[in-house]
Amino acid sequence: MQFERLKQCGRARRGRLQLQHGTVETPVFMPVGTYGTVKAMTPAELLGLGAEIVLGNTYHLMLRPGTDVIDAHGGLHGFMAWPGSILTDSGGFQVWSLAQMRKLNEDGVAFRSALDGSRQYLSPEKSIQVQQALNSDIVMCLDECTDYPVSKAAAATSMQRSMRWAARCRAAHADSRNALFGINQGSVFPDLRIESMQALVEIGFDGYAIGGVSVGEGWPDKALVLETVLAHAPEQAPRYLMGVGTPADLVAAVGFGIDMFDCVLPTRNARNGYLFTSEGVIKIKNARHRHDLAPLDPACACHVCQTYTRAYLHHLHRCGEILGARLNTWHNLHYYLQLMRRLRTALETDAFAAFQRQFFSSPEGSDTPQASYFFAR
Amino acid sequence: MQFERLKQCGRARRGRLQLQHGTVETPVFMPVGTYGTVKAMTPAELLGLGAEIVLGNTYHLMLRPGTDVIDAHGGLHGFMAWPGSILTDSGGFQVWSLAQMRKLNEDGVAFRSALDGSRQYLSPEKSIQVQQALNSDIVMCLDECTDYPVSKAAAATSMQRSMRWAARCRAAHADSRNALFGINQGSVFPDLRIESMQALVEIGFDGYAIGGVSVGEGWPDKALVLETVLAHAPEQAPRYLMGVGTPADLVAAVGFGIDMFDCVLPTRNARNGYLFTSEGVIKIKNARHRHDLAPLDPACACHVCQTYTRAYLHHLHRCGEILGARLNTWHNLHYYLQLMRRLRTALETDAFAAFQRQFFSSPEGSDTPQASYFFAR
Repeated sequence: MQFERLKQCGRARRGRLQLQHGTVETPVFMPVGTYGTVKAMTPAELLGLGAEIVLGNTYHLMLRPGTDVIDAHGGLHGFMAWPGSILTDSGGFQVWSLAQMRKLNEDGVAFRSALDGSRQYLSPEKSIQVQQALNSDIVMCLDECTDYPVSKAAAATSMQRSMRWAARCRAAHADSRNALFGINQGSVFPDLRIESMQALVEIGFDGYAIGGVSVGEGWPDKALVLETVLAHAPEQAPRYLMGVGTPADLVAAVGFGIDMFDCVLPTRNARNGYLFTSEGVIKIKNARHRHDLAPLDPACACHVCQTYTRAYLHHLHRCGEILGARLNTWHNLHYYLQLMRRLRTALETDAFAAFQRQFFSSPEGSDTPQASYFFAR
Repeated sequence: MQFERLKQCGRARRGRLQLQHGTVETPVFMPVGTYGTVKAMTPAELLGLGAEIVLGNTYHLMLRPGTDVIDAHGGLHGFMAWPGSILTDSGGFQVWSLAQMRKLNEDGVAFRSALDGSRQYLSPEKSIQVQQALNSDIVMCLDECTDYPVSKAAAATSMQRSMRWAARCRAAHADSRNALFGINQGSVFPDLRIESMQALVEIGFDGYAIGGVSVGEGWPDKALVLETVLAHAPEQAPRYLMGVGTPADLVAAVGFGIDMFDCVLPTRNARNGYLFTSEGVIKIKNARHRHDLAPLDPACACHVCQTYTRAYLHHLHRCGEILGARLNTWHNLHYYLQLMRRLRTALETDAFAAFQRQFFSSPEGSDTPQASYFFAR
């Protein structure tokens, strides 16, 4: 993996990742492809939207279809017919949020699959092994997901175990050609976050992720974590904010120096008819859209906005039609990927500060905690 | 509407329909687009598969989103962004199969919507009026759906009412530029079927449909109806077999002189993982496909068979992924539309009899009542 920093505007960075499956322009948003598919989308459609990298979920894929099946396809790219890059998570987050009868010790975590009750085991070495079978371009370390809220003592214990696991992941990854990212933990405690980042840097990774955010803390705590952690992250490595977030989150976090994001929001919300537009969020199921002949977003160039009316999208949503989920997903992903293009262009043209100001003054971002935070500084 | 007969092989016909929204090569299969969408497909994908005409359901569309909404889009083509041709049914079949508290008299039928209990009314004139608001290229007469099995006396009464309604539909359609088809009824009674066809011809329609089949009768009865009715149908008009059917149904019915078909089988079965291939039907959920790296149908040129493995389709189906429904539908519609292309090519090259023989000897058609019937003749 190579990471090139093309431009810097304050702390915000315009960069370029070279991975085994191609180039990724940063800041980047990675659509989430839980079970080997970005829900409702084909790979060709994702490429058409400009996606260069998607995320796969190790926990889900190791249970269904199982590592053996994906390995037989030469990895996840072949299985899902996706020619671009793939980042996989470690499986840890889902073990904590979904698995049953979880038993944790220093070696790893035993659990039962919520699908069929089968006994499963994940350790730092096992997670790396599975992600190598998936042939993921960016492999994530297995970490312990710290509860929130949590006492400082418990946060420290949990973070320190994650750092020992990070060292084992680094050893297990050995001389793989794929990249390995460490994950920063420490809840909302600045000194723990700093201790964690120093430990990760000492081990040495291709990139540094910030985990344990968007777990219930508010924006001010998130901003504090970003401000604290990124001051101690190596400038020359990419930084990835895991599981974040709203459009306002992305615009704000790029300002702190984040390069990579993933989140289920654009895809999951799409299926619920919650659509991101230049005029703010539109809930397409609202009766007011029943007779609306306007496009979803008059300012949007995507296929959906160029082709269909709000009335048609409203109808598809009411009828529970698959095409509704498809078109809503298509538009929301276009919105997110276009937002990242707008951010990259602003960075390239030294207009990032103006872009943030404009975004947080517009219907897209004005009614958010991030906007209040931005204008209070 | 114009219908040109390009070629005749025995009773089988190769033809061409000119409609307001373009040309339709016959014999043709029309994918079903119940609620203004062929489930899981975009218009662009349908065009890519070679679809020239789709079917819309008047009953469903008049309840959701309602005629006013579609009328405001200039018709169903604009609403669903489909540039090709559209045939709409009369709504009658769904009134009989879905509506509650149905009350029939000579004028029409009152019923309550199964969606919200609202009072609704359908008469020959109302059905034509709704279909004109949809701007359907081919409008169907409202008929009474005769029960099956049924006594001959009841079948006669029902059929005769449908013929009186057909005359009212003809009058209500007036000088519309769109085509109007009459519907033959009479259950499995040859003399009633003939009486019905003679009544329709006397009224005069742009095309003649055969209704009241695929309601539970077996293939021999269906073949008898086709044989009887088509001998009395005008040669110069298109003939449409409603709601039919399996691939073997299509290959057999073209041999009797049918030009047009519609059926939910390829789309509905796709969503249930029941897939049509050159090797016969494949149920993708079967565990045997879990590790199968082969394409769904090695002989198929469709995007799905060229891109994905059976193992991947099996996985998507098991996970209930939208992409699974999409890819299965894509393939099944390709199979049906390709089957019609094969039939048209066979007709053009005077190879229709050989094509039927080969089809009914192959895994695609051998294990069917139609094959037994074909080889017994």
